[in-house]
Amino acid sequence: MILTLLTDYGRDDDFVGVCHAVIAGIAPDIPVLDLTHGVARHDVRGGALILRNTLPYVPPGVHVAVVDPQVGTERRAVALRTEDGRMFVGPDNGLLSLAWEKAGGVVEAVDVTRSPHRLEPVSATFHGRDVFCPVGAHLARGEDLAEAGEPLDPDALETLELPEPRREGESLVTHVLSLDRYGNAALNVSHEDLAGTGITLGGQVELRGPAGERFHAVVAQTFADVRPGDILVYEDSYRALSVAINRGDAAATLKLGPDAEVWITPR
Amino acid sequence: MILTLLTDYGRDDDFVGVCHAVIAGIAPDIPVLDLTHGVARHDVRGGALILRNTLPYVPPGVHVAVVDPQVGTERRAVALRTEDGRMFVGPDNGLLSLAWEKAGGVVEAVDVTRSPHRLEPVSATFHGRDVFCPVGAHLARGEDLAEAGEPLDPDALETLELPEPRREGESLVTHVLSLDRYGNAALNVSHEDLAGTGITLGGQVELRGPAGERFHAVVAQTFADVRPGDILVYEDSYRALSVAINRGDAAATLKLGPDAEVWITPR
Amino acid sequence: MILTLLTDYGRDDDFVGVCHAVIAGIAPDIPVLDLTHGVARHDVRGGALILRNTLPYVPPGVHVAVVDPQVGTERRAVALRTEDGRMFVGPDNGLLSLAWEKAGGVVEAVDVTRSPHRLEPVSATFHGRDVFCPVGAHLARGEDLAEAGEPLDPDALETLELPEPRREGESLVTHVLSLDRYGNAALNVSHEDLAGTGITLGGQVELRGPAGERFHAVVAQTFADVRPGDILVYEDSYRALSVAINRGDAAATLKLGPDAEVWITPR
Repeated sequence: MILTLLTDYGRDDDFVGVCHAVIAGIAPDIPVLDLTHGVARHDVRGGALILRNTLPYVPPGVHVAVVDPQVGTERRAVALRTEDGRMFVGPDNGLLSLAWEKAGGVVEAVDVTRSPHRLEPVSATFHGRDVFCPVGAHLARGEDLAEAGEPLDPDALETLELPEPRREGESLVTHVLSLDRYGNAALNVSHEDLAGTGITLGGQVELRGPAGERFHAVVAQTFADVRPGDILVYEDSYRALSVAINRGDAAATLKLGPDAEVWITPR
Repeated sequence: MILTLLTDYGRDDDFVGVCHAVIAGIAPDIPVLDLTHGVARHDVRGGALILRNTLPYVPPGVHVAVVDPQVGTERRAVALRTEDGRMFVGPDNGLLSLAWEKAGGVVEAVDVTRSPHRLEPVSATFHGRDVFCPVGAHLARGEDLAEAGEPLDPDALETLELPEPRREGESLVTHVLSLDRYGNAALNVSHEDLAGTGITLGGQVELRGPAGERFHAVVAQTFADVRPGDILVYEDSYRALSVAINRGDAAATLKLGPDAEVWITPR
Repeated sequence: MILTLLTDYGRDDDFVGVCHAVIAGIAPDIPVLDLTHGVARHDVRGGALILRNTLPYVPPGVHVAVVDPQVGTERRAVALRTEDGRMFVGPDNGLLSLAWEKAGGVVEAVDVTRSPHRLEPVSATFHGRDVFCPVGAHLARGEDLAEAGEPLDPDALETLELPEPRREGESLVTHVLSLDRYGNAALNVSHEDLAGTGITLGGQVELRGPAGERFHAVVAQTFADVRPGDILVYEDSYRALSVAINRGDAAATLKLGPDAEVWITPR
């Protein structure tokens, strides 16, 4: 059994270290793996996408995730088991939902807001330390999910809605799901969505961003396939269609923010 | 037995990785936990506060800490055992002192400047690698503290003085101990110091910073209790009184630096 | 057996976490040590220098390194064993070459571009996850190097050329190998190269950078030996001669970039 952590705590402070310390105190023999602590602050959807995208590469275990803008309010803290035997622990704000869908859906859930495993007194701002990591560590030790909190109907859990791509005439209308620090934009289009769109590897497309300006782009396998400054549309390492500029910043050039519409038209 | 690390080395360079490598070479079976490497460069007091504050969450072990502006000078390197059975290793500049006080005081200390465990040749600038981590790793393996260096009178160890809060009429005069990257300021006031001050949860207070300007603030449990832009006084996750602005920067607005006086007056 | 990682992935994204996850899935009992993930993006020589410099402090094991500007092109992926029993895995772009020289040279090499250990489908951009870490994890488990790929003549491996220092009259002409974030510049001069140059600890030298301007510097053991603002020439913690300014930025003041010539003349 392994325990993984994903948070927006960053690495500058002692938050991550203290979470590791709490886990080591409860479950000293459990390996702990930091998936990332670099989720943009309070970016629940960004965290949810990373948790889902990385899942096929992560051994089954207890997956603790904390991106929690409503910490200190009445939002629920939850722990759940999925069809494939994984467990997830985190705030009930949709953060876990994309991953549990990929993991076959939720078969059992508990409300751990007042879990017997929590550290008292629970602070108002640091539930990663006081609730989520203690609960995750007890689960990783093999304790029963049912004993971590109050039973909860899986249908009552919060979920995230992602925008859906759609066809408009010749165009595929897509949306930016996330942006990385290089200005590369991941779209809500998977490999499978491209069937019948006329968007094919090696082809040319026209891109139209939210500012209305039109750009020429190449559908390429990787950056090295186009010249510096050229725009490319490519499959990223999680097989999502993405827009980038070789040695440039696509987000700045095409004026792309989260959820921005990008029209892709074959030429 | 666990070994923990706290430094101001940051994560951009190979310093932390090499420290881990040295420990793995000496004590391959000891789990190593990174408390933080994000202490502000040369901020001995900031590191000392984190080491003390996180202590209740950290399993007993060997705690190596390196914030060492005088590396290469005659300052001593020390290792010590506390009343509660923990061991601490680091420069003798006060960095360890707040933690060892919390751990019941020092029962045995040695000067490890010329420890038989040190790596030769000892560099002039990287005692984390050449002195502190090797000593810590040998102690974590169970070797005697007395064999790590020369006996040292615990009373000869350097300590840190923290400013004390005081009453002035209706006001509680406090000092900024540390600032985080969001501009939140932790004060030298614990939960217990508030008894009889009239500063109570849900109440209103007037704050006066070093620039003399007066601000209105709410004593709240968490950020979510006040509107964006409002100033709040709250207990942080280590139960220290702190000043913040919801979605704002209290340090900038109230012109707070380290050690700044903040007058708090109930209204 | 230990597995070490060195990359230019940074810590903001999930790249490093996914690499750890892939390794944990293949070789759950192998300790993984992060040497650094802060190599400057695409700085192959910078990564190669760190891999070489840190080697004496790193226990023997499988050393995976990824700084890979040509990922997705025809550059080879390789794994190799050195005279001293270590193994290295990475792109065949010179990144590994300074380390394997220090480790006694290559005794066996394989091309792992189409390794049976790789994860399918191999992405065009993330060979750390899909090729290098899986290969490294299988090797760390004790599987044969010969089974990780196709045999490869060690002489066909890419190597890096470092500039050599030279004498010009009274002067030692050196080159900047790397710069850190404080503006300290490491030169291509080791302790041994100083014999007979007249550059001695405690002495004075004149420095001339690429802009032609002359500066006065002290040959010192550490920063604390000179006043703030003074330029010093010192041995860094890997025993390379370096130029720095106490509490200043030598790279900015002397206008030093990578490979810049620095003339050092005793006075």
